[in-house]
Amino acid sequence: MWTLRLLTVLLLAACVLGGAVPGKPPVDEEEHMHPDLQRNTRTRARIIEGEDTQDYWLSASKAHILEKLSYVRNEKRAKNIILFLGDGMGLATLAAARSYIGGEEQKLSFEEFPYTGLSKTYCVDKIVPDSASTSTSYLCGVKANYGTIGVNAHVKRGDCQAMADTNNHVFSVGKWAMDAGKAAGLVTTTRVTHASPAGVYAHTADREWENNAVLEEACGDLAEGLDDIAVQLIHGEVGGKLKVILGGGKRSFYDPEFYEKGRRTDGRNLVAEFEALAEGNTFVKTQKKLLKVNVTETDRLLGLFSKSHMHYHVEQLADPENNEPTLEEMTEKAIEMLQKEENGYFLFVEGGKIDISHHDTMARIALDETAEFSKAIKRARELTNLEDTLIVVTSDHSHTFSVGGYQARGSDIFGEAESLGTDGKPYLTLSYANGKSFDQYYDTEAHERIDPTSLLSEDTAQLFPATAPLESETHGGEDVGVFASGPWAHLFTGVYEQNTIPHMLAFAACVGDGKTACD
Amino acid sequence: MWTLRLLTVLLLAACVLGGAVPGKPPVDEEEHMHPDLQRNTRTRARIIEGEDTQDYWLSASKAHILEKLSYVRNEKRAKNIILFLGDGMGLATLAAARSYIGGEEQKLSFEEFPYTGLSKTYCVDKIVPDSASTSTSYLCGVKANYGTIGVNAHVKRGDCQAMADTNNHVFSVGKWAMDAGKAAGLVTTTRVTHASPAGVYAHTADREWENNAVLEEACGDLAEGLDDIAVQLIHGEVGGKLKVILGGGKRSFYDPEFYEKGRRTDGRNLVAEFEALAEGNTFVKTQKKLLKVNVTETDRLLGLFSKSHMHYHVEQLADPENNEPTLEEMTEKAIEMLQKEENGYFLFVEGGKIDISHHDTMARIALDETAEFSKAIKRARELTNLEDTLIVVTSDHSHTFSVGGYQARGSDIFGEAESLGTDGKPYLTLSYANGKSFDQYYDTEAHERIDPTSLLSEDTAQLFPATAPLESETHGGEDVGVFASGPWAHLFTGVYEQNTIPHMLAFAACVGDGKTACD
Repeated sequence: MWTLRLLTVLLLAACVLGGAVPGKPPVDEEEHMHPDLQRNTRTRARIIEGEDTQDYWLSASKAHILEKLSYVRNEKRAKNIILFLGDGMGLATLAAARSYIGGEEQKLSFEEFPYTGLSKTYCVDKIVPDSASTSTSYLCGVKANYGTIGVNAHVKRGDCQAMADTNNHVFSVGKWAMDAGKAAGLVTTTRVTHASPAGVYAHTADREWENNAVLEEACGDLAEGLDDIAVQLIHGEVGGKLKVILGGGKRSFYDPEFYEKGRRTDGRNLVAEFEALAEGNTFVKTQKKLLKVNVTETDRLLGLFSKSHMHYHVEQLADPENNEPTLEEMTEKAIEMLQKEENGYFLFVEGGKIDISHHDTMARIALDETAEFSKAIKRARELTNLEDTLIVVTSDHSHTFSVGGYQARGSDIFGEAESLGTDGKPYLTLSYANGKSFDQYYDTEAHERIDPTSLLSEDTAQLFPATAPLESETHGGEDVGVFASGPWAHLFTGVYEQNTIPHMLAFAACVGDGKTACD
Repeated sequence: MWTLRLLTVLLLAACVLGGAVPGKPPVDEEEHMHPDLQRNTRTRARIIEGEDTQDYWLSASKAHILEKLSYVRNEKRAKNIILFLGDGMGLATLAAARSYIGGEEQKLSFEEFPYTGLSKTYCVDKIVPDSASTSTSYLCGVKANYGTIGVNAHVKRGDCQAMADTNNHVFSVGKWAMDAGKAAGLVTTTRVTHASPAGVYAHTADREWENNAVLEEACGDLAEGLDDIAVQLIHGEVGGKLKVILGGGKRSFYDPEFYEKGRRTDGRNLVAEFEALAEGNTFVKTQKKLLKVNVTETDRLLGLFSKSHMHYHVEQLADPENNEPTLEEMTEKAIEMLQKEENGYFLFVEGGKIDISHHDTMARIALDETAEFSKAIKRARELTNLEDTLIVVTSDHSHTFSVGGYQARGSDIFGEAESLGTDGKPYLTLSYANGKSFDQYYDTEAHERIDPTSLLSEDTAQLFPATAPLESETHGGEDVGVFASGPWAHLFTGVYEQNTIPHMLAFAACVGDGKTACD
């Protein structure tokens, strides 16, 4: 048995190292073997019908060009704006998600949008940003320091005093829209007080200050006069006017007196406060109730469907007791609510758990969350008019996630690459530069890499390999894509700083105090 | 000493693991700590003057929008087309290259181009492609099998018989341009017979068949009637008409009888054959000679400046004997040569060693080669007229290269991230999913990761860490960017299959047999 295994390893190593493989020309002795030259016999290639002919590619190209030529630049004022944010959704995530939903030849719904750009994501104090600083950027139009939301970079993370100075506060395109008579709302799969959605309505020196307990612990006496993020959402100048707020995160809205898992320590029940504010204010906490909301009878809608972040879509599917809506369902209800508004609306929709699954190196889940995000955008485009509704899809930052190796078309994107490592063991197509999976993939007793295929499972929560051991995999610093459809979508091509995005949205909708399409 | 180190490690580990840090709220016990929450005291943040104010970001955004609005779509026929290819240049390479050239706020020359798109790179039989199949795609407009050039996917890699069938041959936009009376040329920092440039002129079932020796070894009797890539360049239907050919790779043009490092075994001297073809044919092999070429006296120019690939720019700089031109110099001379042409031209320019340095996990060199590539494009845009010359910049595929961690602005992009791994050791911002550096970064005696900062050096050839041990780091599968400037540049926005690119070039220049701007 041992001999057989040794033989197999030696044979495989010989193949990989470019040894005497029959029919193969001698390897260039002066250069390392280019991986392109590694032949692999384990081919399971799938050829899509026609892909082996010129005609297939020529007619597809012709069709693409005709479609491009048929676009009429829409320079109408955008009555409505929807900004979709795939948190942590870099280009590698998009490419792998295509394989996940059916094949490389597919497109995600928003990849059909006619205009694309690239957004530079660095923040004022970091090369690779977080979701707080970026939310200040793509919502408020100003780059900020890492960890801060709705404030300029005079405010360092955790600086209670600088946060108190309203001169440092910056406001989102959601407020600009409301100031111009439009309605605004937000939808997320994370806590509604989490970094990305908080950019719509909050000003805080630290993204962690979601409830009074953390704020007071951090600021001490200075906390007086400062509002935590949940309070800003219910009572703030912007949050207090939002027409629809859907997502997770009940815990920051309640003292345990009202909800046992509540995190507040000030005896408040912010949900009850919301309901008491006006008769038309409606609170829902289940999918069933959400779907039954009659929008004509509801002036403002608050939906909180989970204690913390909402569950992954795969968890929802697996749970017979699940009563959380999908992102698509929340998006649809939010649009229904906002379509009542004569003057139009701004809606922010976040697919927030792409990021969270990537941080845990759970690639299977990250791709599934991306597919769910794509469905919500598809539905939004169906429900709205291309002539008057600008939809922009982007991400806040990437991850250190990569799609490597040279797998055959049609093979499992979660499986191994076709060649072997120099240690004679396979490696996976998907991996991360860092993350908690590190130890799982290294056998410290045998002093060698564990064959990663031995860890492959049907478990959607499976971890994918990483180079450095970190409790939480980090973001990536490369540009993220921007995909635009509707009025003034053509503005969104090119390479630009992320904070330009809300100014372009404002231009298209004739809101805000910059130049607009109506000037 | 030992005690001090242990203490430091423990202290640092406590910080990273979110232990009792004064003033920090308790870590959420139900969730893994989000890396965004990791505070770091080793901040060396650089604030660019003004970045901490709203005004800085608002006025930059306003300027961007005004610039966008000022673009007039150029729907003139493109007299000239230049296609620049950064081999293996994914978005992470671009972002890191900005830090390398001066800071995240910078742009590479082509990132100033007004229109950007995303190119889907998979080939017919692989999810992640190689440079041969992609060159068939972005030059000939047809996707092909891995390892093949200028043939459709009826031809499997190494299939000599299928290669012989001219029905399977597909031709490049270079030929389409020449058929329409324009001139064509190519420039590369690799061998002129290497995969990317070969897409301009060659048809081969295997990218390795650069000279008769490898072709004959692989095809045996079937080699008769087949031409190796070098012969196709000098005598082929397309190669034989190219006005300018500049790059490396002398060895495939000579039998050792004429050049001791020659690889041919057929007694031929293809350079002499080129010179004998016509009186205006000029051959040069040094930078000096290239710069002195009088283009008015030269009808066709062949420059071969090295035995194999040209040296890295950093090697050229370090070598007092260097007599190789830069990519910028070659590009400038090629444009001079082609600007004589009344009917215009097609020029292909490859920055080919970005890819090669990435394969060796040599991030410092990859970024330097990217900076060199950017210079060549800047020069090309200066030398040509925006009104009649379409310049498109793209890549064939990405790499598994990533920019991770949360380094302070202004810190060394080649240095370590600010937080530590769970093993108490630093990790680098730049790394790869796989590559030959694997062993260098793991101490198999101590059974632990080596502190990567202990391997940091001023050596430009330094390797950066990898997750799986491979002799040669692999390509990445995500989309690559497309950057366009000049007539019909607006066609290049959106997400599309890579093989659409030459058809869009052809449309703009009114060449080829598809629909064109002149119809």
